[in-house]
Amino acid sequence: MKQYVEAVKLNDLFTSRNDSDDKRIGDIIIPLTDFQEELSGAIVLVGVPQDEGVRRNGGRTGASKAPVAIRKTFYKLTPFYNTTNQRLSIENLRIFDTGNIRTDGVELEEIHKRQREVVRKLLQLGALPIVIGGGHDIAYPDGAALGDGGQPLGILNFDAHTDVRPLIDGKYAHSGSGFRQLLEDDTLTIGRFCEFGIQSFAVSAKHIEYITNLGKSIIFYDEIRETGNFEHSFLSSLNYCSNSGSNAVYVSFDIDAVTSAFAPGVSAPAGIGFTADELCKAAELAGKDSSVKIIDIAEVNPIFDIDGRTAKLAALAIAYFISGVAQR
Amino acid sequence: MKQYVEAVKLNDLFTSRNDSDDKRIGDIIIPLTDFQEELSGAIVLVGVPQDEGVRRNGGRTGASKAPVAIRKTFYKLTPFYNTTNQRLSIENLRIFDTGNIRTDGVELEEIHKRQREVVRKLLQLGALPIVIGGGHDIAYPDGAALGDGGQPLGILNFDAHTDVRPLIDGKYAHSGSGFRQLLEDDTLTIGRFCEFGIQSFAVSAKHIEYITNLGKSIIFYDEIRETGNFEHSFLSSLNYCSNSGSNAVYVSFDIDAVTSAFAPGVSAPAGIGFTADELCKAAELAGKDSSVKIIDIAEVNPIFDIDGRTAKLAALAIAYFISGVAQR
Amino acid sequence: MKQYVEAVKLNDLFTSRNDSDDKRIGDIIIPLTDFQEELSGAIVLVGVPQDEGVRRNGGRTGASKAPVAIRKTFYKLTPFYNTTNQRLSIENLRIFDTGNIRTDGVELEEIHKRQREVVRKLLQLGALPIVIGGGHDIAYPDGAALGDGGQPLGILNFDAHTDVRPLIDGKYAHSGSGFRQLLEDDTLTIGRFCEFGIQSFAVSAKHIEYITNLGKSIIFYDEIRETGNFEHSFLSSLNYCSNSGSNAVYVSFDIDAVTSAFAPGVSAPAGIGFTADELCKAAELAGKDSSVKIIDIAEVNPIFDIDGRTAKLAALAIAYFISGVAQR
Repeated sequence: MKQYVEAVKLNDLFTSRNDSDDKRIGDIIIPLTDFQEELSGAIVLVGVPQDEGVRRNGGRTGASKAPVAIRKTFYKLTPFYNTTNQRLSIENLRIFDTGNIRTDGVELEEIHKRQREVVRKLLQLGALPIVIGGGHDIAYPDGAALGDGGQPLGILNFDAHTDVRPLIDGKYAHSGSGFRQLLEDDTLTIGRFCEFGIQSFAVSAKHIEYITNLGKSIIFYDEIRETGNFEHSFLSSLNYCSNSGSNAVYVSFDIDAVTSAFAPGVSAPAGIGFTADELCKAAELAGKDSSVKIIDIAEVNPIFDIDGRTAKLAALAIAYFISGVAQR
Repeated sequence: MKQYVEAVKLNDLFTSRNDSDDKRIGDIIIPLTDFQEELSGAIVLVGVPQDEGVRRNGGRTGASKAPVAIRKTFYKLTPFYNTTNQRLSIENLRIFDTGNIRTDGVELEEIHKRQREVVRKLLQLGALPIVIGGGHDIAYPDGAALGDGGQPLGILNFDAHTDVRPLIDGKYAHSGSGFRQLLEDDTLTIGRFCEFGIQSFAVSAKHIEYITNLGKSIIFYDEIRETGNFEHSFLSSLNYCSNSGSNAVYVSFDIDAVTSAFAPGVSAPAGIGFTADELCKAAELAGKDSSVKIIDIAEVNPIFDIDGRTAKLAALAIAYFISGVAQR
Repeated sequence: MKQYVEAVKLNDLFTSRNDSDDKRIGDIIIPLTDFQEELSGAIVLVGVPQDEGVRRNGGRTGASKAPVAIRKTFYKLTPFYNTTNQRLSIENLRIFDTGNIRTDGVELEEIHKRQREVVRKLLQLGALPIVIGGGHDIAYPDGAALGDGGQPLGILNFDAHTDVRPLIDGKYAHSGSGFRQLLEDDTLTIGRFCEFGIQSFAVSAKHIEYITNLGKSIIFYDEIRETGNFEHSFLSSLNYCSNSGSNAVYVSFDIDAVTSAFAPGVSAPAGIGFTADELCKAAELAGKDSSVKIIDIAEVNPIFDIDGRTAKLAALAIAYFISGVAQR
């Protein structure tokens, strides 16, 4: 296991102010070096620095740089937060960082295999993994790792795109095929699956048909806007997934579901989409739901980012997720 | 007629994936080469690649590049969409592209004359033109072409600015004078005219006076925000224009009515303004209203755009308009 | 007094169109050269072109360029505006510009002293100062100048950050310490103090404690979003400050309370935050409240701005504030 992971180098990512009156997340994060540790209730970051799936899908590369960019801004955040009824600290949670899956010179299918194995191990140890992509093909190993536990999977994909393109001859996974791979992996049992935020002019009729024929759910961006109530829409979809007959829900955040004004640094920027506030609210709600066993955040592309705006937003989404977990 | 138009070169604008499961608008668009064709109910794109009116108005040029930039992103969209009650395809509509009005080395007044003639012809053939500017002076020939049909015109201008600056000695049209030209063209009958979205600190008291003295309507941006209901505000103004005693309504979208976070690539960026969602909603509502006989979209400036954000938004607005038409 | 101020050079900042039908704020602004003038009810701009406090706080410099950048766009605005019930002009108000506090080669503490003296003088003459920073350490001299009048101060800080960091050995002020300096200045009486818009992951638990232990108020960004009613939230906080047992309220706008999509050009960009509309609404509400005796706007950083977006937003906020004053 350990050979698949390159340990996090905290010093490269964070410079402490050494101010006990103003601690940052980087001051309280714990590098995870041993996969034997008891991790029950702990949060564990895992980076997957690759964009080979994006390249295969004809997209613009750069997402491989996201795990470092997101961590740098995440570590600078303060571990304090406010909820409606209380002001809390996330210092009491145990937050680990495993570092990154080794991806250099490794074929994508092998990266996925490693990722699946590492995440599965973390889940077995009782941890709640937050996987930081990388292209959105990280969805397949993330979902599969949770599904390997045997329970029927509930999957919520927060995304502008359905990502259910077929593989070529059942091979050659890419950033637009992750959920198809999950749906067609015979070793897994997929319960409820919801595509949340799909944009009208970024989806093919055939892919819609594919999903609905499987009895799975699609909530269009336009439908969500029609309700005028993002929070209610997201909660409905999350609850739908939680009611899978199991407690194993995987929530995947593709940052390109957020409109490019708020998330310019992505592989495929969107002219419309969710706001920064909405992403953070969704992340917090996912954190509060104790059925949620793993999340990931994909498609941040620092090369096209503007002044770190998108990496910062991803970092905030992670912080809001953790604040949700603290409220469980 | 044909000599005024440079036919669209689809291959320069769009590379098909040749994937029958994932068609794009570029796969279904039909180049229009013959102005004798029966076009009843058809949608026809017309580009006007010029920014001479912007230059004359002291603005920053670049809008001449918009027709190509917008088409490139428009063609990549999928022709599928979702409405509140149904999931539809726009494949059943006939969508043509005539290419661009020839503007190279042509004086602005002559460009306007050509544009008016081409658009009038398309209207006579029963088409619903979508004119892609260019500077906002395209408003004059667009409105005039519809008015040439003899019916009283209803005009809705979705804009941060009133664009009713006087011409100098009745000549020298520019991007800030289009609606004044329409209001003062004796060959036209202007019924209802509504300026929608005008920003408080981007309009002169005299221009307000000019419009209200003519008995025309101004809906300020601040008033729309005060209602807290964009959709209701826009529909009220659209219905006001439809009730012109005729069914000839022209809706003009100046992309600078959208705030620069969502539309950075414009001649005159706005610190406040509508959201991307609101523009798309307005376009869809205009599409649904069968009184609307022509729209245009002006002032996209690719030179100042960020990663194609504004061109993409304009493309989405066109797609939403078409989805509205499909619901007629 | 006059030796502390470098007079505004209108010609460097504004080129008039000389169009009496389309006046701009630059056409009606009055340079203020004499600090003996009767200024009762007049609005006076004061620039503070420094970013030494930002540098000391470890931030990225550039805010020293804000007073020029904001004025250039502010002067181009039209002095007309629309309110819910009426369309008004601000031409009837007397709007002065003093120019900038001299800061070149001057130590920050001395700049603060000069600023405090100039602003105090303007207040004594009956003016309503609008101070344009500069780093947010301008808050200390601004608040202090108002407090020097002897009345208990009401302070509303519109900000993502609390800015109550301690000084080192009681010295070495910086852009994160302004409100601490105010709270700990024995020559002042602080009545109500409200931090409005504080972001959960950008504040330390100790600083929260410091403020609440003093009996002061913090309204978190998340709490405001939870209400779903920005205007109501802001008005509540404003009214809370107005009820200080005096009529001396100071409102400080840190532009980084606005999310970076709308305000990219700031010292410390925020991944979430208020919208451009909300900033302008807050400014207008502050203008309408006759308890408000001074405002400032801080942290615009033109070096990191995108196409002048943030400077334009600051200019609009000032215009909306003035339109509010016109409604007093």
